[in-house]
Amino acid sequence: MAMFLFRLFLLFSLFSFSFSNENPNSIINHHNHHVLPRPLILEYPELAEETRLRCGAWRVAGEANNLSPWKTVPEECAEYVKEYMTGKGYVVDLEMVSKEALEYAKSVEVNGDGMDAWIFDIDETLLSNLPYYAQHEYGFEVFDHEKFDTWVEKGVAPAIEPSLKLYEDVLNLGFKVILLTGRSERHRSVTVDNLINAGFKDWHQLILRTPDDQGKLAIIYKSEKRSEMEKDGYRILGNSGDQWSDLLGSSVSVRSFKLPNPIYYIS
Amino acid sequence: MAMFLFRLFLLFSLFSFSFSNENPNSIINHHNHHVLPRPLILEYPELAEETRLRCGAWRVAGEANNLSPWKTVPEECAEYVKEYMTGKGYVVDLEMVSKEALEYAKSVEVNGDGMDAWIFDIDETLLSNLPYYAQHEYGFEVFDHEKFDTWVEKGVAPAIEPSLKLYEDVLNLGFKVILLTGRSERHRSVTVDNLINAGFKDWHQLILRTPDDQGKLAIIYKSEKRSEMEKDGYRILGNSGDQWSDLLGSSVSVRSFKLPNPIYYIS
Repeated sequence: MAMFLFRLFLLFSLFSFSFSNENPNSIINHHNHHVLPRPLILEYPELAEETRLRCGAWRVAGEANNLSPWKTVPEECAEYVKEYMTGKGYVVDLEMVSKEALEYAKSVEVNGDGMDAWIFDIDETLLSNLPYYAQHEYGFEVFDHEKFDTWVEKGVAPAIEPSLKLYEDVLNLGFKVILLTGRSERHRSVTVDNLINAGFKDWHQLILRTPDDQGKLAIIYKSEKRSEMEKDGYRILGNSGDQWSDLLGSSVSVRSFKLPNPIYYIS
Repeated sequence: MAMFLFRLFLLFSLFSFSFSNENPNSIINHHNHHVLPRPLILEYPELAEETRLRCGAWRVAGEANNLSPWKTVPEECAEYVKEYMTGKGYVVDLEMVSKEALEYAKSVEVNGDGMDAWIFDIDETLLSNLPYYAQHEYGFEVFDHEKFDTWVEKGVAPAIEPSLKLYEDVLNLGFKVILLTGRSERHRSVTVDNLINAGFKDWHQLILRTPDDQGKLAIIYKSEKRSEMEKDGYRILGNSGDQWSDLLGSSVSVRSFKLPNPIYYIS
């Protein structure tokens, strides 16, 4: 009898599992009733709990700047990162950073002289290259400059919506927006077109790498550019970027906002 | 027939759920077989998925230094933080930070002159005050200096094990260990006793707040002390702390390691 019950149990567990996969939305809507398994399971059926914990810890370590420079997502975390980037996790994190940045921006008393600056990085900060990375294993494939350039030159990267909202809000608050990107000057026009098509406008300055800047570490190049802004009289009050090399170094902003990015690392 | 099947399905879903709760360990061991519901559900049955996502985003935003100073854990996240601190999440995150710090420490060529320094904060870095916070709602209660001092004076805070391991490893690698804490000089002897009882030994220096340091922001006090270390000839190569105010400011370490702490914030 016990064996029979166990087999029945097994059968219905499997049945419930496949049923759940076919109707994820109806189940999500019911998750407060505690009748069916909770949705997290259904959304991520492939990953073991231990892997999820370790890869979560790896991702958070990256966000906290605890990791040494890395070239690809750890093999164990390839699936986890894909799920994070394509699921709700990434979006909710982006929204949280934008919300915190806006709260701070509102708390700043903007001077009337037009010298209060907010810096935005571009890739994975204002524009999303997720359509590219979806074709390249979400950071598990080693970065290929040529392939990525081909994607950039299409000029079709979509806006990161919470960043677009922040961008518009800080403009409305009276900040001067300065875009500081690791992209090269030769991509200026395609970058401008892409930004405008994605809804960004009214930036004060767009700084790209000149031939002189090629080969510099991002953290050096960006620090130098911030130093120039300060020499020009700007007060750098906010800085949004998905890499720590956007935010650290010298002439650091009063507040910096690290957007999530577990798919690539730039020194 | 469909209704009958659905009822049977419901019955066995419930059966499987209660069964799972009674045998969490056996289920964890089987989690790769995809037969039973996954364990995450079972460990955290109370929290809605949306709350978990938002509170996870809040916690990560803190680790990435994206939050403004905060006095208590957001109400929505009180239960989430408790679970994180008492479950596997906190431990796995601590282990990840220790592992990354050790990898870096091993990569450093330690000079024979004894001036290569690694700084450790104490509370929530080497010693855990979790027994105290367990009695005070895991950060959801407003911090009470007097009550906390009473706890400190007991001198019974346990070691954070992954930090103790890192501590011993960096000593063995030849670093000078300097302890830099926001605790007051009047707590020197209880702190020394607590550290020794918890397994920490052979530190080179223990720096506590003197009467002159009282009232200074932690980030200022700790920057000043690091500056003094540099004047004494130390090369600050590593710095471990659970607060960004342990790590940022001036005379910053070559590498800093942010240990997780979603229960309190010190400016």
